[in-house]
Amino acid sequence: MLLHLSTWPEVETYLEQSRGIIIPIGSTEQHGPTGLIGTDAICAEAVARGVGEATTALVAPTLNVGMALHHTEFPGTISLRPTTLITVLEDYLICLAKAGFTRFFFINGHGGNIATLKAAFAQFYYRCSELNLTHAAEIRCHLANWFMCRSVYKLAQELYGKEEGSHATPSEVALTQFVYPEAIKTAPLSPEVASGFPIYSAADFRRSYPDGRMGSNPDLATPEHGKQFYELAVQELSESYRKFVGEERDS
Amino acid sequence: MLLHLSTWPEVETYLEQSRGIIIPIGSTEQHGPTGLIGTDAICAEAVARGVGEATTALVAPTLNVGMALHHTEFPGTISLRPTTLITVLEDYLICLAKAGFTRFFFINGHGGNIATLKAAFAQFYYRCSELNLTHAAEIRCHLANWFMCRSVYKLAQELYGKEEGSHATPSEVALTQFVYPEAIKTAPLSPEVASGFPIYSAADFRRSYPDGRMGSNPDLATPEHGKQFYELAVQELSESYRKFVGEERDS
Amino acid sequence: MLLHLSTWPEVETYLEQSRGIIIPIGSTEQHGPTGLIGTDAICAEAVARGVGEATTALVAPTLNVGMALHHTEFPGTISLRPTTLITVLEDYLICLAKAGFTRFFFINGHGGNIATLKAAFAQFYYRCSELNLTHAAEIRCHLANWFMCRSVYKLAQELYGKEEGSHATPSEVALTQFVYPEAIKTAPLSPEVASGFPIYSAADFRRSYPDGRMGSNPDLATPEHGKQFYELAVQELSESYRKFVGEERDS
Amino acid sequence: MLLHLSTWPEVETYLEQSRGIIIPIGSTEQHGPTGLIGTDAICAEAVARGVGEATTALVAPTLNVGMALHHTEFPGTISLRPTTLITVLEDYLICLAKAGFTRFFFINGHGGNIATLKAAFAQFYYRCSELNLTHAAEIRCHLANWFMCRSVYKLAQELYGKEEGSHATPSEVALTQFVYPEAIKTAPLSPEVASGFPIYSAADFRRSYPDGRMGSNPDLATPEHGKQFYELAVQELSESYRKFVGEERDS
Amino acid sequence: MLLHLSTWPEVETYLEQSRGIIIPIGSTEQHGPTGLIGTDAICAEAVARGVGEATTALVAPTLNVGMALHHTEFPGTISLRPTTLITVLEDYLICLAKAGFTRFFFINGHGGNIATLKAAFAQFYYRCSELNLTHAAEIRCHLANWFMCRSVYKLAQELYGKEEGSHATPSEVALTQFVYPEAIKTAPLSPEVASGFPIYSAADFRRSYPDGRMGSNPDLATPEHGKQFYELAVQELSESYRKFVGEERDS
Amino acid sequence: MLLHLSTWPEVETYLEQSRGIIIPIGSTEQHGPTGLIGTDAICAEAVARGVGEATTALVAPTLNVGMALHHTEFPGTISLRPTTLITVLEDYLICLAKAGFTRFFFINGHGGNIATLKAAFAQFYYRCSELNLTHAAEIRCHLANWFMCRSVYKLAQELYGKEEGSHATPSEVALTQFVYPEAIKTAPLSPEVASGFPIYSAADFRRSYPDGRMGSNPDLATPEHGKQFYELAVQELSESYRKFVGEERDS
Repeated sequence: MLLHLSTWPEVETYLEQSRGIIIPIGSTEQHGPTGLIGTDAICAEAVARGVGEATTALVAPTLNVGMALHHTEFPGTISLRPTTLITVLEDYLICLAKAGFTRFFFINGHGGNIATLKAAFAQFYYRCSELNLTHAAEIRCHLANWFMCRSVYKLAQELYGKEEGSHATPSEVALTQFVYPEAIKTAPLSPEVASGFPIYSAADFRRSYPDGRMGSNPDLATPEHGKQFYELAVQELSESYRKFVGEERDS
Repeated sequence: MLLHLSTWPEVETYLEQSRGIIIPIGSTEQHGPTGLIGTDAICAEAVARGVGEATTALVAPTLNVGMALHHTEFPGTISLRPTTLITVLEDYLICLAKAGFTRFFFINGHGGNIATLKAAFAQFYYRCSELNLTHAAEIRCHLANWFMCRSVYKLAQELYGKEEGSHATPSEVALTQFVYPEAIKTAPLSPEVASGFPIYSAADFRRSYPDGRMGSNPDLATPEHGKQFYELAVQELSESYRKFVGEERDS
Repeated sequence: MLLHLSTWPEVETYLEQSRGIIIPIGSTEQHGPTGLIGTDAICAEAVARGVGEATTALVAPTLNVGMALHHTEFPGTISLRPTTLITVLEDYLICLAKAGFTRFFFINGHGGNIATLKAAFAQFYYRCSELNLTHAAEIRCHLANWFMCRSVYKLAQELYGKEEGSHATPSEVALTQFVYPEAIKTAPLSPEVASGFPIYSAADFRRSYPDGRMGSNPDLATPEHGKQFYELAVQELSESYRKFVGEERDS
Repeated sequence: MLLHLSTWPEVETYLEQSRGIIIPIGSTEQHGPTGLIGTDAICAEAVARGVGEATTALVAPTLNVGMALHHTEFPGTISLRPTTLITVLEDYLICLAKAGFTRFFFINGHGGNIATLKAAFAQFYYRCSELNLTHAAEIRCHLANWFMCRSVYKLAQELYGKEEGSHATPSEVALTQFVYPEAIKTAPLSPEVASGFPIYSAADFRRSYPDGRMGSNPDLATPEHGKQFYELAVQELSESYRKFVGEERDS
Repeated sequence: MLLHLSTWPEVETYLEQSRGIIIPIGSTEQHGPTGLIGTDAICAEAVARGVGEATTALVAPTLNVGMALHHTEFPGTISLRPTTLITVLEDYLICLAKAGFTRFFFINGHGGNIATLKAAFAQFYYRCSELNLTHAAEIRCHLANWFMCRSVYKLAQELYGKEEGSHATPSEVALTQFVYPEAIKTAPLSPEVASGFPIYSAADFRRSYPDGRMGSNPDLATPEHGKQFYELAVQELSESYRKFVGEERDS
Repeated sequence: MLLHLSTWPEVETYLEQSRGIIIPIGSTEQHGPTGLIGTDAICAEAVARGVGEATTALVAPTLNVGMALHHTEFPGTISLRPTTLITVLEDYLICLAKAGFTRFFFINGHGGNIATLKAAFAQFYYRCSELNLTHAAEIRCHLANWFMCRSVYKLAQELYGKEEGSHATPSEVALTQFVYPEAIKTAPLSPEVASGFPIYSAADFRRSYPDGRMGSNPDLATPEHGKQFYELAVQELSESYRKFVGEERDS
């Protein structure tokens, strides 16, 4: 059930049986010479909708811009500053919490979002307690990074080994190829690709990783791989979601 | 050309021939008993993509949450506070301006965004001058509300007259029906619908407009109407866009 | 009754019979070669005091600096950024709301304030609900732009036609001449005056409108006209105010 | 020369001979049973205009709302939070500094503003250096509290001794009586008045000082006293201003 | 009793008998050619711990960075902007207030912190009332500057006369020598030292005070003097603390 | 070399040979019935000073309050909100970067700080580029969590196995016992200790972990263990530091 394709009475009805919601979050950032700028949002959204279908959970609209400041030396990247993203998440979640949602399951497509998301969760809980929301103490956020699913990680190792790399990876590119087969891009990719440099400023990042890839060979990606990744992620995260919304504590 | 389906080298190439970008912005808010919560984002995105195709302009990912604080008493609504939205827009546009974009054409689907967008534009120009961006003085934002296109407005009057109302209108519902025919909703709609109350707080709004509609009869909407609205908006805004990016001043 | 010339026990007494307050807001910005920098504040304050007298309403001190970032390339202009102005308005209105005021009637003298004021109202209502103010749901703001009063607009058209323009207009200059006859300025005014350019950055604005006027001929202004504008605005807005504070909803 | 009664070309001309500007700042807060809510703004404005006349300096519009959170339990008080006031002052001063002003002479009417003003000055200097303003290193702010002028203080001691108190004082009330003889208020004043309590929260303040006065007897005030205070303050601060704008350092 | 060397059950027990806490605040800023960069934090911490011992009060960890923007042209200085420091103090104090503390006794080692601290106290009280904290109206902050203790000031005058100066003073240097005898620094000090210039920007400060001292001769400092200053400050502030936490009001 | 025990000319000299600085960051939060509230700050500071000695690096004053919102239901905890901590770090690091430092090596004692620190680094790099700092592209931050040193982790597993737990761990308690043998606390510790619950709000945390420990048995800690942990961490992080400041990139 997609929030943007629902009506408010449908949401009201939904809340009578579940307090959980899935929130996809991606990024709008360079993904090397052949990876789509929307890769992280596309992957997060696809997986989130799959999980939503499998679990009959409500899926919120995708946060398609995240924390990608280190990619901003490549044109087309759009990023929020971490303090902005924290404030955005506070605003979003407070609206949903006031309406009665208490379980927020984020499906994330971008490693660079993780730190800011965790910080935002802490700030959100604190704000809920300050606002004296009815269910403040029951409110919980869960961060699920689809690319860190055990099954996904294992398949990526099997298929690509070291060539999986850590940005513009064949696994995420494959997933976008599965979702948007009409947007498969090709470009000459140098077989030598930088890897192993820590991430500092955007200027430093571009110096370290001149074509935007971090140790990856996205040429290995195929739509068929993408389908496999999709199915594994949906299955694994559907289980996580069910566990998360069902989570209780003996008291 | 959709930003999220492009690569960074494609954006680099695009920038050699154009400095313009289209940014769809909607809202995630109640639209009455039968209107989709994503109505404003759906409409803005559809029209923006149409304009992008017609003009070969780049289209950014949709800002699908906007300023809808007055709708937050209805479950499913998500809103940013105006100061948050202004900061978000500053972050977005600064990224794009640093990359070389100078003409930002917003296609907006929600009346409640207008004030905050205008405020954000002013703050963004000022920030550009403080950052000494190379093209600071050339940077321009344009706000195009698809529902206020002359041709759209005229057709809505012809088709619906007073029943167009001002929120959850048949014209916007029709457009979503055209885009998502699989998500056409029905529900008993009281023939008597509140109208004419000014907008104050969310609590007051719900008291004034108990089912969320403002003077509208969305039952009149059809997907065929939606197609007409879509085509009119795309045509009219494509012209606006061309004029906007071509705009020069004799000096 | 002017707030700054009242004592707190007088305000306490006032609140027993009315919950309304009038808040004049202007701007401190260039108004062409002959218009006063304080024009918008002067006009808003004069009209607000007139309405206050006519309705025995309380009038708050004038917000004499507003949102005029686009005028900041002309010396003497002082502006707040929109986010600052929103925060200022939140602070002001929260103080007054805690004291028991629920009806805030803004009399505005500057078109550039409108967007930010509307955004601020939305943010203020939301904050009131978060603070659980006793009368949160009754709190209402109304924005009255004196220069958009029907009677004012009509007279300006009759007197000046197209030469009214849209900034440093003869109508607002006339009103300042009526209020401050000792500060009537003269300077050679080019009969050709720029008009029709959209408003972007401050640098762009000055390039478009080199002497600060937007299509206007303030030479046509006279103190007598000013008196007429004043009286029309006071009459029309006094009615609006009475209606606004008396506004009730059947429940 | 009053900024709000000047045109931008007049300001441009002024800047050719002086870089100084006088900024009156007051407060909108309770001043006991007979003191005007605008007392601090009225006094600061009157003195500032007097100094402006004596020195031909430009006088900015009065900041009539300041930091008066501790008075907010009395109706009619309006206050900014310190962080808001700092941001407001940054915005104001940056506008003026960009236009070429380098000497900002604040004439202040409210003790409660002092801390926030000093903090704001520090933040403003820092911001100027970050913005690389042309004259960043020459920018200076001066805080002149009219009620702390040596001559004013001496006269207040002579006239009122201990009955001067520290809020709603006869000296400031006298000055408002001189400026607004039509707004002289009377009310029974208890001869016993609280004094000596430190200032904490607004609730605590009202508990300590139930009628708003702090150890003062404003019944002693007369318009004639007010005239004397006015003249002493204008004379003393005119000298301070001349010294401040003329201040140079041997290098 | 030092907070950082206590356990939470010890704090819980402490709160049963006292609601007071001592908070040392210093600065990390240049103190001339021989003064330690940590001088203000070292002095505040030492005195605070002495007072804690004498009164069995709880002592919080030292805020060792404060408001020192005017010293930032000297390497090694670290400063918060005033708005940041106010927010930090709000966060700190809200945590402590929620836990039940109501009396916050700041022992401050840096004149430059005073304005921002006072502003922060006002903002904190206001926030407490907005959060509806149980004891909001009982919450009180007290600012004690150890270097302004009557006894300290008197001894400094006796020992150093005019050579005490106002920054990098022999009295504060002496106190650090007493605390850290192993870190006594020597360097050639010009007998001529700048004094009397007002404080504006950091660049201006360094121009006025090229070696960082303000009229002081820290060569006069000895660890023995430091011991005396320490003991006087501890004694005087212990009394202040006892009075502050015992403070009641007849009702 | 400790910054707070240095003079500004010493820092100036230091900068001629190194651009690196070590910044210890801890937290002020409950650590179970016997752990010190300052545990994380104490450990970070001790290790940082050890590394500073081993490498002759400059060590900044300890940030002794961090992000511990989830511990705020236990008295004595003080926390910043993530957005506040990010702003604090921006202010700190900008001061140091302007002075010429380019390598910031954080030694962290608190897992809860990690997310916010990483977010802050990204925001800081971005700000440096906006401020056009001379060495913006060379600026790098490194996060070293002493408790995650390989050697430390290994020893903790050997000594405590599963009883190490994840908060109020015997390893960190041991380190504080080594540093402050006079502050070793004892209390009856239930042999059964909660573990495995995810971290959500502060209220939820206290419900899950009633005495504050997370799966740990701090009774196993001894000062001798502490010495071992200290030495291992210092050795391992000294190597990391040397590598970090020496880090170059072939170009």
